Amino acid sequence: MAGESSTTPLLSDELDIVIPTIRNLDFLEMWRPFFEKYHLIIVQDGDPSKIIKVPDGFDYELYNRNDINRILGPKASCISFKDSACRCFGYMVSKKKYIYTIDDDCFVAKDPSGKDINALEQHIKNLLCPSTPHFFNTLYDPYRDGADFVRGYPFSLREGVPTAVSHGLWLNIPDYDAPTQLVKPRERNTRHVLLEVEKHKKYVDAVLTIPKGTIFPMCGMNLAFNRDLIGPAMYFGLMGDGQPIGRYDDMWAGWCTKVICDHLNLGVKTGLPYIWHSKASNPFVNLKKEYKGIYWQEDIILFFQSVTLPKECTTVQQCYIELAKQVKAKLSSIDPYFTKLADAMVTWIEAWDELNPAGDAK
Amino acid sequence: MAGESSTTPLLSDELDIVIPTIRNLDFLEMWRPFFEKYHLIIVQDGDPSKIIKVPDGFDYELYNRNDINRILGPKASCISFKDSACRCFGYMVSKKKYIYTIDDDCFVAKDPSGKDINALEQHIKNLLCPSTPHFFNTLYDPYRDGADFVRGYPFSLREGVPTAVSHGLWLNIPDYDAPTQLVKPRERNTRHVLLEVEKHKKYVDAVLTIPKGTIFPMCGMNLAFNRDLIGPAMYFGLMGDGQPIGRYDDMWAGWCTKVICDHLNLGVKTGLPYIWHSKASNPFVNLKKEYKGIYWQEDIILFFQSVTLPKECTTVQQCYIELAKQVKAKLSSIDPYFTKLADAMVTWIEAWDELNPAGDAK
Repeated sequence: MAGESSTTPLLSDELDIVIPTIRNLDFLEMWRPFFEKYHLIIVQDGDPSKIIKVPDGFDYELYNRNDINRILGPKASCISFKDSACRCFGYMVSKKKYIYTIDDDCFVAKDPSGKDINALEQHIKNLLCPSTPHFFNTLYDPYRDGADFVRGYPFSLREGVPTAVSHGLWLNIPDYDAPTQLVKPRERNTRHVLLEVEKHKKYVDAVLTIPKGTIFPMCGMNLAFNRDLIGPAMYFGLMGDGQPIGRYDDMWAGWCTKVICDHLNLGVKTGLPYIWHSKASNPFVNLKKEYKGIYWQEDIILFFQSVTLPKECTTVQQCYIELAKQVKAKLSSIDPYFTKLADAMVTWIEAWDELNPAGDAK
Repeated sequence: MAGESSTTPLLSDELDIVIPTIRNLDFLEMWRPFFEKYHLIIVQDGDPSKIIKVPDGFDYELYNRNDINRILGPKASCISFKDSACRCFGYMVSKKKYIYTIDDDCFVAKDPSGKDINALEQHIKNLLCPSTPHFFNTLYDPYRDGADFVRGYPFSLREGVPTAVSHGLWLNIPDYDAPTQLVKPRERNTRHVLLEVEKHKKYVDAVLTIPKGTIFPMCGMNLAFNRDLIGPAMYFGLMGDGQPIGRYDDMWAGWCTKVICDHLNLGVKTGLPYIWHSKASNPFVNLKKEYKGIYWQEDIILFFQSVTLPKECTTVQQCYIELAKQVKAKLSSIDPYFTKLADAMVTWIEAWDELNPAGDAK
């Protein structure tokens, strides 16, 4: 009913784009019309001596592993290495209210009319209008143009709650796990000959709030959030080099974030915008990274579905520290890894607060 | 991953179409190619002496108020009069496994490519493939062609649960309450000049499971369900003639149904198919019918969001009787109407069991 504003605020001074990468950022050329106004925070993964080329005209800062070690000192142990989980370092050093993070194999998608999708603009729309986690609206996001609350939607809930997270989706190569990649060779191998109609079949013109009490698989490929509201919960965990799992970094952040959003009365939206995901990662490599996660997640999800946070936790940091305690108490029996992860969660918050002294941190 | 079958079973012998009406059923002409194979149960509301004309070639049975009184005797008191809530009598007298119910001002909609939508076929697809209430899938219904479970979706939950309800949506005139109709005069008055593009903007190509623990505003305009799985919960309450409210019949059924589906591990889907809703009802009349409901629903929804059913309730009937008890205990303080409604809920189950003796009732 509030409706989308026809001119979306750009928020150029209030939003950073965080990109984890190991290669030259040629993909930015395609995003130039949409990204050039924004500041980029590039988190270089892997060999810090490698030079990452950024196309001319972009305003950016770049951090490699040496920078992370120098800035965080011993606390750098909480930032993953050789895994895109390292991106969360960028969230920590940003001073902006909003973050958009995108993978470097994600390109501009087209809507069904053939028009380039300005993904960032849609994320901003999502973040600037409320969420409705307390009651389900069958016409999806009631705040979009042409939509509203349906009959039977309680009036007391129509103001909604502040939106903390906007989770965007993907055309072309979906975000599948290794086993699904392996059993769907057609989607993996023949993607270049997919008919246009098949590609567009997947375009769902909807944004919706994930209901309170429902956790979800959050993908970090195309994700925006309000750093002031939820930043300290967006820790991507311990993955990659020296760790027993990978490819669960965004999942971990999503589970923790959703539980804390529910507790703090904040909203999480999913749906539009789409980006064009160009390249499926290698399913055999992925299987090696994922297999423990696939096994462990059965218990982890039961934990997150039943976890409750005490009323006394009124800030994201307090919630996160409490969650770390419960992770240690309840998940360490699965594997000693979770003790290490719980400790890293605490370290992450300490590092966050160090870089974002009181007054900045909300 | 299971994928939609390219040829959807018709289920002609297993599905009844239930239509509440007060007028000649000319609207069926447009539905002929899709409905003619099915048996219709017409529930005539209002003056029983009026003759309702049904287009030639349809196989139907018709019940007016005299029939309802004759068949149910004193128990007919649980069936509303002068309100489309009377449709639930049709669910009770059906002997089929599936029910599709549609309003007589709903016509065949077109998909964005201009093709007529076979709403019933999509409902059957929805009902024949599982639901996923225990974990959210960001790519919507994972069982549709071209979709799947995303990375991070627990494998133990990928079988899903049986689908009990398929809730379809509406193009053209959305299902708004009276206040929303009143404050959106443009959508109410100028609907005939809406640009095609605006109409299609509302087409969202998705089906999704409403998560466990989340209730929703169920609209009876375009609704299908598995009668064997959930039929006795599909009571549309006491509305219309002699009652203090109207237009909350489907809402009541939706709240009760969702709570019972959650308890019995059944799924509820919403989204496709769309029908073309031709005519907004009069918002001033609607306001009169709705205003108590708008006020009461604030408490009713808190009740349904927190209600729990004991483990001992293992059939829909047991769940429904228990729910009636709790309605009486917890909602009667709002208005004596709820005592009457709770009694009617019990009468409904008694009547259901009478018409559907053991062996039939699941």
